[in-house]
Order: sequence, then structure tokens, then C-alpha cells
Amino acid sequence: MTMGHNSFGTEFTFTTFGESHGQAIGVVLDGIEAGFPIDWKRVQEMMDRRRPGGNPLGTKRNENDTLTVLSGMYDGKTTGCPIAIIIPNNDQHGSDYDALSDVYRPGHADYTYQQKWGLRDSRGGGRSSGRETACRVAAGAVAAQILEQKGISIQAGTVQIGNLKTDKRDWSTARSNPLSCPDSEKAEIFGQTIEQARMHNDSVGGIIECVVKGLPSGLGEPTFDKLEALLAHAMMSIGAAKGFEVGEGFHAAELPGSQNNDQMDGHGFLTNHAGGILGGISTGEDLVFRVAFKPTPSIAQTQKTLNTNGEEVEITIKGRHDPCIVPRAVVVVEAMTATVMLDAWYMAKGRNA
Amino acid sequence: MTMGHNSFGTEFTFTTFGESHGQAIGVVLDGIEAGFPIDWKRVQEMMDRRRPGGNPLGTKRNENDTLTVLSGMYDGKTTGCPIAIIIPNNDQHGSDYDALSDVYRPGHADYTYQQKWGLRDSRGGGRSSGRETACRVAAGAVAAQILEQKGISIQAGTVQIGNLKTDKRDWSTARSNPLSCPDSEKAEIFGQTIEQARMHNDSVGGIIECVVKGLPSGLGEPTFDKLEALLAHAMMSIGAAKGFEVGEGFHAAELPGSQNNDQMDGHGFLTNHAGGILGGISTGEDLVFRVAFKPTPSIAQTQKTLNTNGEEVEITIKGRHDPCIVPRAVVVVEAMTATVMLDAWYMAKGRNA
Amino acid sequence: MTMGHNSFGTEFTFTTFGESHGQAIGVVLDGIEAGFPIDWKRVQEMMDRRRPGGNPLGTKRNENDTLTVLSGMYDGKTTGCPIAIIIPNNDQHGSDYDALSDVYRPGHADYTYQQKWGLRDSRGGGRSSGRETACRVAAGAVAAQILEQKGISIQAGTVQIGNLKTDKRDWSTARSNPLSCPDSEKAEIFGQTIEQARMHNDSVGGIIECVVKGLPSGLGEPTFDKLEALLAHAMMSIGAAKGFEVGEGFHAAELPGSQNNDQMDGHGFLTNHAGGILGGISTGEDLVFRVAFKPTPSIAQTQKTLNTNGEEVEITIKGRHDPCIVPRAVVVVEAMTATVMLDAWYMAKGRNA
Amino acid sequence: MTMGHNSFGTEFTFTTFGESHGQAIGVVLDGIEAGFPIDWKRVQEMMDRRRPGGNPLGTKRNENDTLTVLSGMYDGKTTGCPIAIIIPNNDQHGSDYDALSDVYRPGHADYTYQQKWGLRDSRGGGRSSGRETACRVAAGAVAAQILEQKGISIQAGTVQIGNLKTDKRDWSTARSNPLSCPDSEKAEIFGQTIEQARMHNDSVGGIIECVVKGLPSGLGEPTFDKLEALLAHAMMSIGAAKGFEVGEGFHAAELPGSQNNDQMDGHGFLTNHAGGILGGISTGEDLVFRVAFKPTPSIAQTQKTLNTNGEEVEITIKGRHDPCIVPRAVVVVEAMTATVMLDAWYMAKGRNA
Repeated sequence: MTMGHNSFGTEFTFTTFGESHGQAIGVVLDGIEAGFPIDWKRVQEMMDRRRPGGNPLGTKRNENDTLTVLSGMYDGKTTGCPIAIIIPNNDQHGSDYDALSDVYRPGHADYTYQQKWGLRDSRGGGRSSGRETACRVAAGAVAAQILEQKGISIQAGTVQIGNLKTDKRDWSTARSNPLSCPDSEKAEIFGQTIEQARMHNDSVGGIIECVVKGLPSGLGEPTFDKLEALLAHAMMSIGAAKGFEVGEGFHAAELPGSQNNDQMDGHGFLTNHAGGILGGISTGEDLVFRVAFKPTPSIAQTQKTLNTNGEEVEITIKGRHDPCIVPRAVVVVEAMTATVMLDAWYMAKGRNA
Repeated sequence: MTMGHNSFGTEFTFTTFGESHGQAIGVVLDGIEAGFPIDWKRVQEMMDRRRPGGNPLGTKRNENDTLTVLSGMYDGKTTGCPIAIIIPNNDQHGSDYDALSDVYRPGHADYTYQQKWGLRDSRGGGRSSGRETACRVAAGAVAAQILEQKGISIQAGTVQIGNLKTDKRDWSTARSNPLSCPDSEKAEIFGQTIEQARMHNDSVGGIIECVVKGLPSGLGEPTFDKLEALLAHAMMSIGAAKGFEVGEGFHAAELPGSQNNDQMDGHGFLTNHAGGILGGISTGEDLVFRVAFKPTPSIAQTQKTLNTNGEEVEITIKGRHDPCIVPRAVVVVEAMTATVMLDAWYMAKGRNA
Repeated sequence: MTMGHNSFGTEFTFTTFGESHGQAIGVVLDGIEAGFPIDWKRVQEMMDRRRPGGNPLGTKRNENDTLTVLSGMYDGKTTGCPIAIIIPNNDQHGSDYDALSDVYRPGHADYTYQQKWGLRDSRGGGRSSGRETACRVAAGAVAAQILEQKGISIQAGTVQIGNLKTDKRDWSTARSNPLSCPDSEKAEIFGQTIEQARMHNDSVGGIIECVVKGLPSGLGEPTFDKLEALLAHAMMSIGAAKGFEVGEGFHAAELPGSQNNDQMDGHGFLTNHAGGILGGISTGEDLVFRVAFKPTPSIAQTQKTLNTNGEEVEITIKGRHDPCIVPRAVVVVEAMTATVMLDAWYMAKGRNA
Repeated sequence: MTMGHNSFGTEFTFTTFGESHGQAIGVVLDGIEAGFPIDWKRVQEMMDRRRPGGNPLGTKRNENDTLTVLSGMYDGKTTGCPIAIIIPNNDQHGSDYDALSDVYRPGHADYTYQQKWGLRDSRGGGRSSGRETACRVAAGAVAAQILEQKGISIQAGTVQIGNLKTDKRDWSTARSNPLSCPDSEKAEIFGQTIEQARMHNDSVGGIIECVVKGLPSGLGEPTFDKLEALLAHAMMSIGAAKGFEVGEGFHAAELPGSQNNDQMDGHGFLTNHAGGILGGISTGEDLVFRVAFKPTPSIAQTQKTLNTNGEEVEITIKGRHDPCIVPRAVVVVEAMTATVMLDAWYMAKGRNA
């Protein structure tokens, strides 16, 4: 993990920058192997799964999030030098936010940023906006392509919205619904729950599950960079994430060891309660984990808060906000997973394997 | 986060070394402010809360885990130079493990270590043993003393064993029961559940909650070193941890935004669903999080597994193992929390504040 | 030092990207304190001291190196978030280099890049071009402004060209000659030497001295991040640097201890043979060091080399190259010094001092 | 480079700790490949080349510097886990230093440590003592063995004492004289110069040259972790180092490009003015660099200085100090070179190549 707190990764690092209403946001990728032919069209497609307006269950704002690649490519291939990507901001004015510039929005980072730095870019959350995750998706989309060539695939999807859950895991059809839910029927009900929240000027949270297939055993570095520790770090660095669990996760607390242990026979592991990791190192089984997301804090209901003078005020947040961040967060989870897996690969096997 | 995977932290770093049955384990602390009078007796007391034989609900093995401080102190005060601490191993023979040296114990890191490195120290898990956490406690005990002087206190305790939970949070009496449970009555039932697991040659998991009081607002570094991300990294790097959540955690997925948002008035936050962090930065409210631990994998029941030749074998693990890791893990959670908080303080405020 | 090899610094880090003939180069600054009013006009002025065409003794190519700041500023002040700066490349075609794309230019990184990565961006050196130093100057110009506010000033200048040296140190007039030489008379002769090299289709090297004034005692971190070690790392990372020395430097090898030691009396140090550092930590005296630069490798003389097929070829490098890199390197030395000093300040005193 | 300032390296890191008169000093090696059979007898032999009393030209104090390995080895091989090494201090009393505890010795770090931290371990320099380099030699001796297996050898020797130099480079006989000088005849005169300094209660400096043979092309990481930058950082972190140069070094400033460039033909490079590095990456030629060391500051002559109360005092340093640090520094230069080369190898090729 680099010291610059806007960088992530050890051997494959990326650094994000930019505020939601500045001129542009962007990301610099460092440590990518040389000679890899990145398909930028597919990177853009992954970006489009996250972009505002790209998901019927998300915000009605429409932004195109078009990538410009400034460096690190030659003749269509990576050169081993840093790859800089810029994403211009469509809306640099943020007039919606003028009224909010001196008020702390509940559930947002307004208060803590002001406390920490004594000032903040108040246009749409500035640096703390979910917009920053666009840069993560760009980085992760590149990592995912390289992993794909190594036979590793990553798929995430919604498995809970509000208090509605599904136990079905039909990943083959998951991409066909806007929640990437591995249960097409539940996906509809999940969607209705989200639209109801929107109608009631409220929001709702949910849980995303992610599965990594094709991972060899041996990735992950004890003691402090265990694979689940790196993943937890990555996931909990996503703005609205409130929980992380791997394999049986919190449910493991309820199991006896005789049931939770994964026994082996000549065909390999008989079960995968561990979720694909033992002692911080991948076992070769599917890596499975879940991330809990809180409901979007921006709601069009009247809430009590303070302004920057410390005075009590009431606030009603206007604008076309996501009633649930989960549908658009699925690709962010996939992207951050890809960055961790590629980094773990480089750490364990080097760039030439 | 340093690159050496046996180091943790950014401004306050510590590096652990040693295997469960080698000559000694130890830890090197780097980045501690100069002039602080460490009370090593209190550090040893915190060590004793973790040591084998120190908890009636834990293993019946008895080890004394006595610290030797090799450097970094002068006239009873820290000098700003690295503090090296050595903890000799009582049992370097590990005869109990001879029979296990070529077998992969289910739920342990034996298989993955062998896959990763092609060889492993098979005496009691070697480096992957829970014994390594003794070094973390030593580091955390030093950090906790420095935090205490800044008015910051950390307390963890058991809130679930198996499927038994408590909602009571009487932290004042928690240290008086062997689970550090904030509900003295439930503590007894928790303890009985653990003893039953022991009697049945089985084990059981649980959940630890940790509360940090007195934290100022402004700690935590966006974007990737959010306070909850650093904490998640720290907690998920503890061997048996399977899940992490902050504030409402996974429950936040079920809440509407109107209920999950923490509104403010002139007296501060009206609620603390966030668990003391917004946008990755401490709010000044109590920081509250939970960690799920799996049941101890070492059980005296017959299990199927493979040996290092890939042959199917049956295994029955002997020795005096903890039927539940949770009671002794409480102090490890506190210690790792202390290292993260001190690091976050140094990052945000420097060493002189 | 971050792991991304295109990043530099510990608490104040910057990451550079871009190739000499790509769309743009740029730099991301991370870790800058919040609330500082950067004067971007002065940053641009420092850029102009390095830009091609900005120095009569340098290349006759004319590029304007205009900065665009994408993030990290609000209301004219730093926000504590990363500052991204883009510098578009004037010439993205590099037609001069077409003939060189499959030939290893002597003294350049062509051969080693090809060996390392199996491919390279052959347009003008790509990533290994001196153009990358424009990004360092942008980073250093920001750092220098912050240091200035703390009473710290940095000045570098040419003290040797070829085998001509000066012992005069009149820093007050140095900026008035194109070599920033602290000896105006010698500056003219130095300039003539450079122009003679140009006329003979040859090049020449030189030595730059740098002085930091106003530095408090206590900066620099033993053991491995001694102030001179960080400076040496910074300076030797500049493309054409071949040597670094501090205080008496190589001359110290010739002195007896009785002469080299800096004794003290009530007024402070009686001499400064140490160059302002003892034990890796600043003494409070002027910090003085020198950097040796090799002659520019691009010369319009016929040289023997290989092409990428391993065949012997002859090469004559055309284009308007600097006959001596030293005049334009002065500001690069100042800039890198500023980044190290600000980083050392943050490490020793935090961002709020 | 890790953040802990007592750690060095990126993929192969080592952390040193301990003061000259504490209980012990030591080092933790992290990132070493698994399965390597370290010959600890040879490590001890390399230690003996540095130990006090091991060199006739050094101090007459006699210490044995015996290694104890606490972890990271199993069945005589590395396990991939951290290797901790302890070196007990023979003399923990430091009675010679009692008189010096409140006086700043000229040329030492006493003043700066006190300024930085407000207190210091005054027994023999504490952490700033040259004794810390014993830990570096232990780390480097391990690295050198691994490099040797890859066909890479490192040899350093004295090429200047005071103002006496040699141009002869007969490395085959260098180890047979106490200066490891590649010119046996000059070695005697060098030795006499050192003994004369000792007799006059004075000291003398010198220059060490180091050659790395067998290095493949492709090691070193642009932009900021160029091989010469990492080496410079490593060398300038050795206490008494005042200058570093690679290849022609400072002399390159005097050469025209037509002479300094290394041309190539079908047999490879025709010359090696570059010293084996181009663009920060190894060329495959011999890597050659030099380090200048100042005269030992501890001399038995009366010098003016201050005490910790700021009062003017005179000081005469007793004890059996090295009249010249160079003879014993040769092995430290070799060791630090080995750590940088192994790290560069791991960075470029991974641990499995």
C-alpha cells in the first residue's frame, strides 16, 4: 500500500484524483506488465455500467464518462510505463449544490472533511463524491482484462436489497438484469423496492456478492497482506460500504468447527465454507465474499443538521440522486476486486508469469 | 502500508517475526514518538490477557509470554528509534506436531503455505499459528498507552458465541468475565457453550465488538486509507477473522436512508448509525465495529484430508486447543485497533500533537 | 518512497506520467497540506526556466509547457486532495525520430528499455526522455512555495562546465545569467564552452551546486532515510546525473578529521564542512550539495551502435538538442530539492507546523 | 522503500534496530524467496570482516558479533517468512561515554539527535553509531549468497586514502590486504597513512570502489527507482558517506559527449563510461561506482563544542576508535550493494527467476 492515500496497491498501484465538479477526474496506473494489448472499448463498456444514466434503477442524470488515455501505450500495447486516464466532468457548475455549500448533509463527508481540513470543495461532495469510483472502474477494467488472459474471471451481483434476500446463485443470467442479481425473479422485486424508495423520497441499502473463479492457489501474502485483508481494505474504501465478509463470513460465528472446516479428498476440497482462502492465501477454490452498502444518504426529505457556523438548520436535498447505490456499485466491487487480484498475482508470481 | 508483508502501518509501523515453535517470536516498532515513558508492566499485563493458560475458557496449555525489550528505550523513555521486543517460545519441540508434519489440517493454512512456497515449517502452524498475535498485542499495548495519554480508550468484548447473542452493552463490567462480554449474565451462558464444544471435541465461533472512545474528529485519510478500510485491513489480517462491519454494518443494508442517516443539532449527532466514521474520517462520536471469528479449526474429531503426497488420509488433532478463539482474541482486536488509531493520529496530526 | 516506481516521496508524494511524444505528460501531487494558496503563475515561471527554448544555451526547439490544473484546488487554495497537473505535448509526431525507431542511440536508454520490456516507445526516448523532468519541476515549484512560507529557500547554479570551474559563490546575481552561475564572469566562459560544443556537433557536461537556506535542525530520518540519502536518491533519479556529494563530498576523503570536523562555540558551528547534515539530520546550517551531469548523449556525429535486430549500424542524431543539459537542469535540481525538503518537513513536523 | 525509516528495500526489505550499548542489535529480513539454503557460517565470515578487532587497521577493541537466527528457517532452508537475526552487544556499560553524555561530539549526530527528539541515548552514539552497520552486513551477506547462485558477484575495495589514489584494479588479490585494495603495493602505503593518522591522534578519509559482475540487463525501475538512485540512497545512508558516483561519475562532467558515450558493435559495448547503467536500468556490463567516506570524527585531540546546556566546552575523545573507517566500511558497501541488487532482481524478475 503506498503512502499517498490516494494510491492503492503494492506492485500494481493506481492513483486517483479529481472532484465531482472539477474539470476532470482521472487515474494513473503503475506497475502494469509491458506488451499487453488493452482493449479500450471494453474498458469503456465497463465504465458505462457505472456511469450516471446507464442503469434504469439509478440516477436519471446522464453523463458519458468518456475515457482519454494520455500515456503508457504504444502500438496498442502497454509499455510498462504509467498509464494515465482522464475522464472529463460533464457538469462543472454544480448549481444544485450552491444552496448546500455551507450545510453539512447528513450521512455525507461534509462535516468530517471540514473538521479535518478546515475547508472543502462543497460542489457535490468534491473528492468524497461517488464520482471518484469511476476512476477505480477504469483501473479495474484494465486489471480484469489481464486477469482474464490468465484464466481468472470476476463477477459480482446484488443478493439483498433492504430486507429482501435471495439464496439463488445463477450467475449465468445475472448480467441481464440491472442489479446483476443471480436470481432473475428476485431481481424484479428488488427493483420494485428501489423504485418505491425513490417514490417516497427515501433510499435503501443492499448487499453485493462477488465470486472470483479460476484463481490459482498461492495468492495472498501473510502476515498482514492476507488476501481477505487486502480485499477488505479495498471494499471498505468504497464510500458507502459498511461491512465485508468472506466465505461463511458472520455466519461462521454460528457454526461448530466440525461443520465449518473444509475437509479434502482426492478430488480436492469437499466444501468451501472458507470462501477460497486459508491463512490469507488462495486455496484454488472459488473466492466468495460479500459487501454491505448503506442506503444513499442524499434523500429529498427534511432533515436536521448544522451549517458551517454551527447553527441548526433543516435541509432537503434536491437533485436526481440514486435511490440505491447498489446497482451501480456492482461494477465498482468487480473493479476493486480485479485490482486486488492482479496485485496479488504480481506479488506472488511476478509480472512475467 | 509497507511492502514487507510482515509489517503493518504507515507512520507507526510494526514488523512481526517468528514461528510458533522456533526459538522466539518478536516485533519491531518503528515511528513511535520520542520521550514517551512506556510502562512495560502494563504491556505485560495486556500480553497476559492473551497468553495460553491465561483464560479459563481457552487452552489448558500454560505459557508465560515474557517480554524482553532490546532497543529504543533510554532512561525509561522512548528515544524515537525502533523498539525491538522478543518473546521466547516455551515449547520449541512441538512433539505433538510430529504426526502432523506431512498432513494438511482442515481449516488451517497447511495446504496453502505448502502450495505457495513448496515447503513449510510444520511445527504447530509455524508462521501461520495464532501465536503470531502475541507480537501484535505487544505492539498494540504500547500504542494503547500513548493513545490513553491523548484521551482515547479502546475496549472490546464478546457479543455473540455460536448463535447466542446479546444486545446489552455494559462495558464497565465487561473485563470481569473471561469473555470481556458487556453482559455478565450472557457471559456465563456463552462460557457454557464454549465448554460444551470442548466436551464434544468440537469448537465454536463468535463475534467481538470494539468501541473506541475519545477519538477526535478528523482521523482517517481518504481515498484509500479511510479509517474503516484500515481497520478492516487490520482485523481481517487476524488469522480466524471472517467478517468486519462498522456502525450498523450489514444491518445498514436493511435500513432506509431516512433512518440510517445521523442527523445533527446543536448538541451534535442525534444518532450514531455510522459508527463514528463518515467519508472515511472520524466524526468524534464513538467508533464502533464488529469482527466475526470462525470456530477453531483444530478439533479432536476424525476428519478427511490429504497428506503432502496427495494421498487421502484421516486426521484427529490432539493437543490442548482452544475450543473457541474468541475469548483470547478480544485483546488482539483491542491491540490491532490501537495500532490503527495511533497510526491514524500520526498521519492526521503528526507525532507532536 | 512509494512502490509505484513513478512515484516519489513518503508524506508528500508525487507521481509522474507521460512520454515525450504522447498526448500529454503530467503529475499528481498527494499529501499537500490544505488551505495553501498556490500561486500558479509562479509555478509556470519555474516551468519556463526549464522549457525548451527558454534558455539561450539550450535547444532551439520552442515549446511552451503550459500547465492545466485538474483537481485539488478550491477557491484558490489547496483542499488536501490530490492535485493533478497536465502539460500537453506540442509535438506528438516526432518525425525526427522515425529513422531512430529501430536503432539504439548511444548513451540513451533505448537499449536497456528494449531489454527490460521487449518493446519501447521509440519516439524521442518516450518515458526516458528528459521531458519527464517538466513534471518534477511542476511538483517542486509547488513545494518550493510552501517551503518559502516556512522561511526556507533553495537556489542552485552551475559551478563547472567541462573542466572549467569556479570557486566564487555570489548567489545574489546567479539568476541573471543563463547558467544560474554564482560567478557572472565565469558564466560567460562557461557559455562559450557550451556554444563551442554545439558548433562541433558535440556536447559537454558540468556540475550544479545547490544551497538550501533557512532549514531548521531536525529534518531527516535515520536510519535509511537520512536527509543526504533522500537527496541522493532524488538527484540520481534525474536522467543524466552521474554523481552526488554533500558538504566537502569527495574532498572529505582527503581531509584529516581534525580539519573536517565542524567545531562549535556559543555562536554555533564554526565551519560547515558537513554541508548542513550530521547523522542524516539537518543541523540548521546551510545545506550544500553538488550533482555531476554527463554530456548530452544526443550528438550529430557518426557513432557505432546496433539496431533492434542486433546488426551493426552507424547513427548520426539530428534535431536541435541541448549541447549541455546543465543550464536547464538547474531548475530541475531546485525542484527535486524542494520536494525532498517538504517531504522531510512533513515527516519531522507534520503538515500543521 | 518502506515508510518505517529503519527499513530499506521494496520487495526484499530489511529492518534494523538497536543501539551500540543496548542489550543487542538486530535485523529482520522480509521478502526472501523460500527454499534457499543459507550458509550461516559464510554469513558470519562476512560479519567478521566488519567486526571491531577484525581488521589490523581498525579499532583495537575486540568484539565477536556472533549471530543468532530466531526465525524464518526450517530444515536449513528459508521458508519465505521473515528471518530475524540478533547480535548481542559485548559492552553494554559504555563507561567510556559517561563523560560525554552531555557533550556534543564534533562530527557526530549528538547535536542533531538531541535537536530532533529532545533526548538521545548517549552511550556511544546509540542508534547513530556505526555499530548499526553490523545489521546491514548480516542482511547483505544473505542477499549476496542468493545473488551468487544467480551468477552475480560483488566486490568492493579501497582506491583512495587521504590524497593518495590508485588507478590499478587487480581485484583478484584485493581481499588479501586489510583495505581490500585492488593494488597490493598502494595498499601498504594506504595502511601507513592510516597508522600515521592514529599516531597523531587524528583520522583520515578515503574512497571505496565497488564492482558488480554478472548482472543481467534489465534491472532497475524508472522513473524514480533507477538503479543508480537506489544505490545512491543505500550508500548515502551509511553514516560517514559524503559522496556517490557511478561510472565516470564527477569526471563525466569534464568529458565531451563524443567521448563519454558508450558505442556498440556486434560484440556489445565498446566502452563502459556509463558504469553499467543507462536510463536507470542495468546494461549487462560491469556496474561500477564509488563512495567517498569522511575521516572518523572521533579523535583524541582537543576540540571546541557545546554541552546540552548550550555552554562552551572542550572535548577530547578517548577510547580505541578507528583512525579510518574505510577498511571496515568495504564490507558494508558490499552488503548494501547486495541488498539493492537482490531487491532490483525481485522487482524486475520476481522471486522465482
